[in-house]
Amino acid sequence: MSNVTEQELAMYRQMLAVAIEEAREGLAEDGIPIGAAMFRKDGTLLGRGHNRRVQEKDPSIHGETDAFRKAGRQTNYRDCVMVTTLAPCWYCSGLVRQFRIGTVVVGESRNFSGGVEWLREAGVNVIDLDSTECAELLAGYIESHPEVWNEDIGELPPE
Amino acid sequence: MSNVTEQELAMYRQMLAVAIEEAREGLAEDGIPIGAAMFRKDGTLLGRGHNRRVQEKDPSIHGETDAFRKAGRQTNYRDCVMVTTLAPCWYCSGLVRQFRIGTVVVGESRNFSGGVEWLREAGVNVIDLDSTECAELLAGYIESHPEVWNEDIGELPPE
Repeated sequence: MSNVTEQELAMYRQMLAVAIEEAREGLAEDGIPIGAAMFRKDGTLLGRGHNRRVQEKDPSIHGETDAFRKAGRQTNYRDCVMVTTLAPCWYCSGLVRQFRIGTVVVGESRNFSGGVEWLREAGVNVIDLDSTECAELLAGYIESHPEVWNEDIGELPPE
Repeated sequence: MSNVTEQELAMYRQMLAVAIEEAREGLAEDGIPIGAAMFRKDGTLLGRGHNRRVQEKDPSIHGETDAFRKAGRQTNYRDCVMVTTLAPCWYCSGLVRQFRIGTVVVGESRNFSGGVEWLREAGVNVIDLDSTECAELLAGYIESHPEVWNEDIGELPPE
């Protein structure tokens, strides 16, 4: 992250705090604790959301897709920052790539690394903040609900 | 498509007819005419849907994601067939890859080729039926609504 200024880093951490709030809201609803938010580069919040697989029985609502939909119709995402507590899966990485979201801020990629390298190769600016708070929040959930976690990333349940 | 039997081809065409019905429903609602449906390999319908960007002001609802969400929570998509009137974009290709949907039947890839080759490289069975009906339905919409089409695939409007 040598090309990220201290000022940018401080802004990304503030943005991540919003995604963490969303993740905690999801956990309080007995859902998978993954949150996200989408901002303009100047810090304007466009949309925030969290995984709602359990709450709404809707497998299409990951943190990132929830934040994206809450932002409504936009014609240009190039100056947008998608911040998410967990590295985006292929589905959410595809969202970022199709709509050319310029920057992705990842809370952590320890539990799941998703499409991070693929996005970097496609020219997306990906910043991994390696947050222990994010990692521990999700790890606790995975430990207590392995079957829901496997379902959420399309893995078969252990035999 | 040398490894597809006549019987499978007939089934895929029947499945595509459902996606085309959805696309026509979208057009009747003044929306982008792209439809999709998800089936088990035995022909059981799990969910069907269409693009709802215009109707619900929701950019996250492409045909494939709508069919996927309508199918509700599933633990295994390996024997599923996602049929769509148009080749899936990166976002929907990511959905297919993350949830390991085994087969994708594409109505046409003339207007937009999306992530078809990427899915094939990842081992997904992709069958392109090259339907003139699908191609003409979408081409007519693109011609009359170029700005909505560009928005839907994350392209900047022409200057």
